[in-house]
Amino acid sequence: MENGSKKWGFRGNQSLGTASAITIRGVLNMLMENLNKDDPRPAIPLGHGDPSAFPCFRTTHLAEDAISDSLRSAKFNGYAPTVGVLPARRAIAEYLSTDLPQKLSPDDIYLTIGCTQAIEVILTVLARPNANILLPRPGFPFYEARAAFSHLEVRHFELLPEKGWEVDLEAVEALADENTVAIAVINPGNPCGNVFTYEHLKKIAETARKLGILVIADEVYDHLVFGNNPFVPMGVFGSIAPIITVGSISKRWIVPGWRLGWLVTNDPNGILEKHGIVDCIKGFLNISSDPATFIQGAIPQILSKTKEDFFSKIVNILKEAAEICYDGIKDIPCITCPSKPEGSMFVMVKLNVSLLEDITDDVDFCVKLAKEESVIVLPGVAVGLKNWLRVTFAIEPSSLADGLGRIKAFSERHAKKE
Amino acid sequence: MENGSKKWGFRGNQSLGTASAITIRGVLNMLMENLNKDDPRPAIPLGHGDPSAFPCFRTTHLAEDAISDSLRSAKFNGYAPTVGVLPARRAIAEYLSTDLPQKLSPDDIYLTIGCTQAIEVILTVLARPNANILLPRPGFPFYEARAAFSHLEVRHFELLPEKGWEVDLEAVEALADENTVAIAVINPGNPCGNVFTYEHLKKIAETARKLGILVIADEVYDHLVFGNNPFVPMGVFGSIAPIITVGSISKRWIVPGWRLGWLVTNDPNGILEKHGIVDCIKGFLNISSDPATFIQGAIPQILSKTKEDFFSKIVNILKEAAEICYDGIKDIPCITCPSKPEGSMFVMVKLNVSLLEDITDDVDFCVKLAKEESVIVLPGVAVGLKNWLRVTFAIEPSSLADGLGRIKAFSERHAKKE
Ligand SMILES: Cc1ncc(COP(=O)(O)O)c(C=O)c1O
Ligand SMILES: Cc1ncc(COP(=O)(O)O)c(C=O)c1O
Repeated sequence: MENGSKKWGFRGNQSLGTASAITIRGVLNMLMENLNKDDPRPAIPLGHGDPSAFPCFRTTHLAEDAISDSLRSAKFNGYAPTVGVLPARRAIAEYLSTDLPQKLSPDDIYLTIGCTQAIEVILTVLARPNANILLPRPGFPFYEARAAFSHLEVRHFELLPEKGWEVDLEAVEALADENTVAIAVINPGNPCGNVFTYEHLKKIAETARKLGILVIADEVYDHLVFGNNPFVPMGVFGSIAPIITVGSISKRWIVPGWRLGWLVTNDPNGILEKHGIVDCIKGFLNISSDPATFIQGAIPQILSKTKEDFFSKIVNILKEAAEICYDGIKDIPCITCPSKPEGSMFVMVKLNVSLLEDITDDVDFCVKLAKEESVIVLPGVAVGLKNWLRVTFAIEPSSLADGLGRIKAFSERHAKKE
Repeated sequence: MENGSKKWGFRGNQSLGTASAITIRGVLNMLMENLNKDDPRPAIPLGHGDPSAFPCFRTTHLAEDAISDSLRSAKFNGYAPTVGVLPARRAIAEYLSTDLPQKLSPDDIYLTIGCTQAIEVILTVLARPNANILLPRPGFPFYEARAAFSHLEVRHFELLPEKGWEVDLEAVEALADENTVAIAVINPGNPCGNVFTYEHLKKIAETARKLGILVIADEVYDHLVFGNNPFVPMGVFGSIAPIITVGSISKRWIVPGWRLGWLVTNDPNGILEKHGIVDCIKGFLNISSDPATFIQGAIPQILSKTKEDFFSKIVNILKEAAEICYDGIKDIPCITCPSKPEGSMFVMVKLNVSLLEDITDDVDFCVKLAKEESVIVLPGVAVGLKNWLRVTFAIEPSSLADGLGRIKAFSERHAKKE
């Protein structure tokens, strides 16, 4: 039988194509392919959420020492328990408890492969037949991708630009029905760079309680705040509604490649336990991959030894960069920024294509910008808002200024002539 | 509204309970809970597949140096591409190609979080509605757990103890139908400690070709062989049928906690690509977690710098331990070993409960053994064979001898009196 004629009986699972079509990584790769290799200027990446390559964002050597010590101890070369090693769970419980009214127990903490896997875990656990989940628009498309993969129906509520990107809580109530299981919020916000007030977070929890749903609080950008609102963890409201907090060391320590995160049950009333959520989390972790054990082993030292001045250095760079970004954007007529970023690493700006001559939409804008100016910016459609752009300011401030200058030149070149 | 009376609308996804019920980790934890805390003797673990805690199995410091160098370079703190960083893919392609007739390309290599995630990826990719997969019995229950989670039907073929645990190929042909997509084989074998010959591997590939299915070759114990048969990678037969090889550094380097593995397409005829398997692998990796980037970054150095004498030291300890184990078992009437282990870290032994007075089955044997002798052995039912036992010999040889002595004392104490 010839190879060409053999009938092979396998095909890939088609649903994987759809589930993975909408990742930010995919859109950025597409833009990167559009860069003009003959441009002598360096490309300026304003699309990513990973500033680790910039020298000013290098992590603290104390965190590197912690990893190295853990590795050299040879105590963490073996498999870890599915929920994570106890010293790390204990250290994270303590670390997160400092901002909470109640103390977390190590049993509330599950170690995950970054915040990414924590999201995967909770969406998988919640995906019963017919269940639906409420997700923000704009949002972080990994939620949509994992929900699609698990056949969990997604219903979008809007974040309101004119209200500092607060959740449209009336819309949330209107969207929910008896099959709604959870609402997800990201605070500090990606992609909006907003920081929710204590009062607004409390209202979200009260709405969840009213609807009988749990809150997924994505706090991967925790403590990266530099505006008026302090960072308040959603877990503060755990006695109003059960909260699943997801987070990681990726952003605060600028080490997204270390792949260490957590899923936390903030639930003093034990509702998650009672409804089988805790057992399902453990069950799914049992058939899932774990973070590297020696990285888990380093967590107590990373959390206890990192100095406040490292954190404030990073926040100060972000604050400075956010201001450069906000001011630079004001100078470009075709884009407007509804509110100054106060946290995370991003800002959403509205694109007014009617002011441009030969640009049809946000994707067209970003593709041509990459080609002509070697600047990468994420089209809003990738995070759910057509004709907006998500701009990262987590980059060396001087490059940021350079990038904004190029966007300005690009916009002027493409402006409609009167 | 009182907390007690609130109606919460979420429940955990029930299928996670069933999918995760059958892991080895779960059974071992249950046995560990049965250990007698008042026994002054140390517990002897003969149930695990992770000898990293024993000083004689400590990994080479050259591998630790590679991790440390990668970490300190600060080049690998950021997110990695979904398929893995190129230098690591290239290094693994070269490393695996030395035993193959054709050279692998870096594009054939996908980095995964241990062999575990590689299994997860391929089973997910193959899980179309109605598809079924052929798995060995006895086997590695993670396959069954992931198949159940993905609704991929499992059909078991037997490994034949009287034929050195070879695959019952006639049974394989009888089991397969037009919905069969793949056959999985583990070589060197877990749980049997067997090593397939070149001829037998070739016959497996030919059977797969005849059936129009792909072969999943689990080679996580690659090179851990110490009998008559050399290790032959299944990829050698990639032009007969498409082979997906899964493996990792977990076993050969004794670092299962480092969580670095691979999925490899051995498919010179491009059949996997043509049937959408390659796109689905990429699609699923796009929504999955990645191994830590700096561990990926260390792979070129780990693979190139590790000295032959480290590998041979490990294999020699395993060989010595396998012999102690085989001889010790011959001395215990109620258990028999059909063939001397020649690879991996395990041997399967048959339990003759009719020779015992108050032991009902393998689980009962293992629970009482844990209680009375502080020895942990895996009941065969956990790997699919009731009234067999899986004994690990990857432990300090002196503890192994001690453990076998205790099993003997236990067996004598429970022997039927004539
Ligand atoms: C909102 C949000 N959640 C989760 C993640 C994933 O974070 P991690 O690197 O910890 O997996 C990101 C990363 O950019 C994010 O922006
Ligand atoms: C047959 C088999 N496959 C896969 C694995 C998982 O290996 P890893 O540690 O690389 O994830 C194991 C671990 O014991 C195994 O025995």
